[in-house]
Amino acid sequence: MPRHPVITLITDFDTTDHFVGTMKGVILNINPKVEIVDICHQVASYDIFDAAFILAQSYRFFPYETIHLVVVDPGVGTARRPLLVSTMEHVFVAPDNGVLSLIYEREENAEVRHITADHYFLNPVSSTFQGRDVFAPVAAWLSRGVGVDRFGDPITEYTKFASPKPKHVGDSLIKGVALRIDKFGNIITNLTPEDVPQLFAENPPPFKIMINEQEVTRLNLAYSMGKPSEVFAIVGSSGYIEICTNRGSAAKILNANRGMEIGVVLGSPTPATPDSA
Amino acid sequence: MPRHPVITLITDFDTTDHFVGTMKGVILNINPKVEIVDICHQVASYDIFDAAFILAQSYRFFPYETIHLVVVDPGVGTARRPLLVSTMEHVFVAPDNGVLSLIYEREENAEVRHITADHYFLNPVSSTFQGRDVFAPVAAWLSRGVGVDRFGDPITEYTKFASPKPKHVGDSLIKGVALRIDKFGNIITNLTPEDVPQLFAENPPPFKIMINEQEVTRLNLAYSMGKPSEVFAIVGSSGYIEICTNRGSAAKILNANRGMEIGVVLGSPTPATPDSA
Amino acid sequence: MPRHPVITLITDFDTTDHFVGTMKGVILNINPKVEIVDICHQVASYDIFDAAFILAQSYRFFPYETIHLVVVDPGVGTARRPLLVSTMEHVFVAPDNGVLSLIYEREENAEVRHITADHYFLNPVSSTFQGRDVFAPVAAWLSRGVGVDRFGDPITEYTKFASPKPKHVGDSLIKGVALRIDKFGNIITNLTPEDVPQLFAENPPPFKIMINEQEVTRLNLAYSMGKPSEVFAIVGSSGYIEICTNRGSAAKILNANRGMEIGVVLGSPTPATPDSA
Repeated sequence: MPRHPVITLITDFDTTDHFVGTMKGVILNINPKVEIVDICHQVASYDIFDAAFILAQSYRFFPYETIHLVVVDPGVGTARRPLLVSTMEHVFVAPDNGVLSLIYEREENAEVRHITADHYFLNPVSSTFQGRDVFAPVAAWLSRGVGVDRFGDPITEYTKFASPKPKHVGDSLIKGVALRIDKFGNIITNLTPEDVPQLFAENPPPFKIMINEQEVTRLNLAYSMGKPSEVFAIVGSSGYIEICTNRGSAAKILNANRGMEIGVVLGSPTPATPDSA
Repeated sequence: MPRHPVITLITDFDTTDHFVGTMKGVILNINPKVEIVDICHQVASYDIFDAAFILAQSYRFFPYETIHLVVVDPGVGTARRPLLVSTMEHVFVAPDNGVLSLIYEREENAEVRHITADHYFLNPVSSTFQGRDVFAPVAAWLSRGVGVDRFGDPITEYTKFASPKPKHVGDSLIKGVALRIDKFGNIITNLTPEDVPQLFAENPPPFKIMINEQEVTRLNLAYSMGKPSEVFAIVGSSGYIEICTNRGSAAKILNANRGMEIGVVLGSPTPATPDSA
Repeated sequence: MPRHPVITLITDFDTTDHFVGTMKGVILNINPKVEIVDICHQVASYDIFDAAFILAQSYRFFPYETIHLVVVDPGVGTARRPLLVSTMEHVFVAPDNGVLSLIYEREENAEVRHITADHYFLNPVSSTFQGRDVFAPVAAWLSRGVGVDRFGDPITEYTKFASPKPKHVGDSLIKGVALRIDKFGNIITNLTPEDVPQLFAENPPPFKIMINEQEVTRLNLAYSMGKPSEVFAIVGSSGYIEICTNRGSAAKILNANRGMEIGVVLGSPTPATPDSA
């Protein structure tokens, strides 16, 4: 373990109660030298997918051997298992409810363990706040260098969901979905440039992106290139195509929500450009 | 003082202004090696009781010799005294307005001092932001190892409120109160299992918990054991009985607020179980 | 550079997405020993002035050689330049959009550089999240001791706005403006005691402060000296005169907003006191 281990936190606890602070107290009580970093505590309550998405966008930017703690846990107090997932570079601690699905998808060699070593837990373990009693202590002991194998055995069956994949319908329609609305009102889709290489060809065909029965027909390179209240597309910082507007909320203008269908209609069928294979 | 001292913060400053950041700057300027942990900055404005409750739920999970700084201070700029309260394990810095009442209640040997050593304060001291000018510097100097006796003399008279206690009305009614609504809408009562041991006996009597003219008649072991929109009771992570629902807000369903009366009505009078004395 | 360098963050990212956490990951990946302090992430979206004000109120309280990172960046992805501004005591990293205007105003010897050394950036640089790809890495390398001259050459032309200055209209009227409404609803004006020394003379004249067609006629020394729902003036912690009320929101009572004109009308023309020259 590194000299300055990092533990990140993603929860749906918000910061209006003592919950997050208490988890940090538990961690520092076990390892006063750890660096604790909040990624997000405003995950929508009980929203596994939202937490999975936030984790997927952020974890790779953290140092080698960072421990990512994700506590969105509507099944707290039941038999749902606490998991420890390790890759060559990162460690994840979370309940077995699918919140690590995008990690399983992106990290082929992830090893998944069922945490059973309850001597690392606080005693007694409450049935309503296991972020404090189970997950925080496990992350803290990991940060002190306790090996992953000490917490429990590997398992091969665990809960995961498949992230929504774009669908090609014929040659000229690609269907996607709105994954998330960010703070600025940008609509993050599940479409990447690789899904619609035509838009990024040297001579792109006319196109329209359909969302909530409205059309977006422009692709810009920067938010501020948009005219006032014009809605346009851009390639966002996570690699996904976003629908946005200059200094405003595209989601508001289009009355768009997470989960809405996105359709990219290509004007005249063009062959994929050579470099997009 | 420990090598990695911790200062925790509880305020009603929110994080929309520079206030919390500025207090951290003041602290780090005095002691760059201290670990600062936010417990909560969304205490309701001027709400002494809310801050006292948040502190009481969290402080014991922090390392030995943690310094807890509580700045909910509607009397800032007046003669209300700044206090330093020390126990064997923790130190508290706060205005003398009752915000440490639950500490006095739980920590029998707490020593209370009036902070008078104004050479530790920023100069000049403003009359509107003593979190920055008085409390943060005192906490920072404490974290550097300055002894508590250097800040002022012990006092025996200080402001405190009594936390609301459950009342037994005859054999079959116990009256409590809603202490707080948490982020998820759980209603935290001031009743513990020790107040109503009958509910936890091997053969519990029928019971109803009355709140806002509605009845709760079930006790569950985990949030997710509730049926959709069913409201039930659970023993929460702070030891208090909570009224909750599965993946939703019990407070919303019951239209319940903090301060509302809670009545536990026991169906058929049963003697207290032997182990609940 | 100090042993425990500090990087502060001011953004309009809010904490509902992964953005702030990801920036911290980037920083810790480059310098695991840096202390990262959030000043504010709830700057109103794209609001350069708001961010400038928050920075101006807080930066001087941080340790010598603190690095202040300000990412309010509506022009992200365009040719607007990333800047590095250094004074004898602090370093600032921000886009060239005026967000450092109050620093230029207060720090006469500030040296402004255009950051061009793109080998310090993440690769590739996105066009929508340069807080992650440009500003965070530059701040992190600075915190590791890389000299400011390594990031780019000094420039003399850069974007700045002038902060609004009070105007004297005849002898008995001083016009100012509401700079900000804080979390408590206090209205922070751009007037300091030096602008209206008469109010602070030994025998102050009668006066009225006009805002939104309402009059404030009292000056108090502490928030809690106000009678219930009385609106009055006070000298706030940043040195500006504030309009406030005891345990409530003056902005709400007066229906006042940022940018509103404030007029101080002095009752009987009095000469300026000698010490206010």
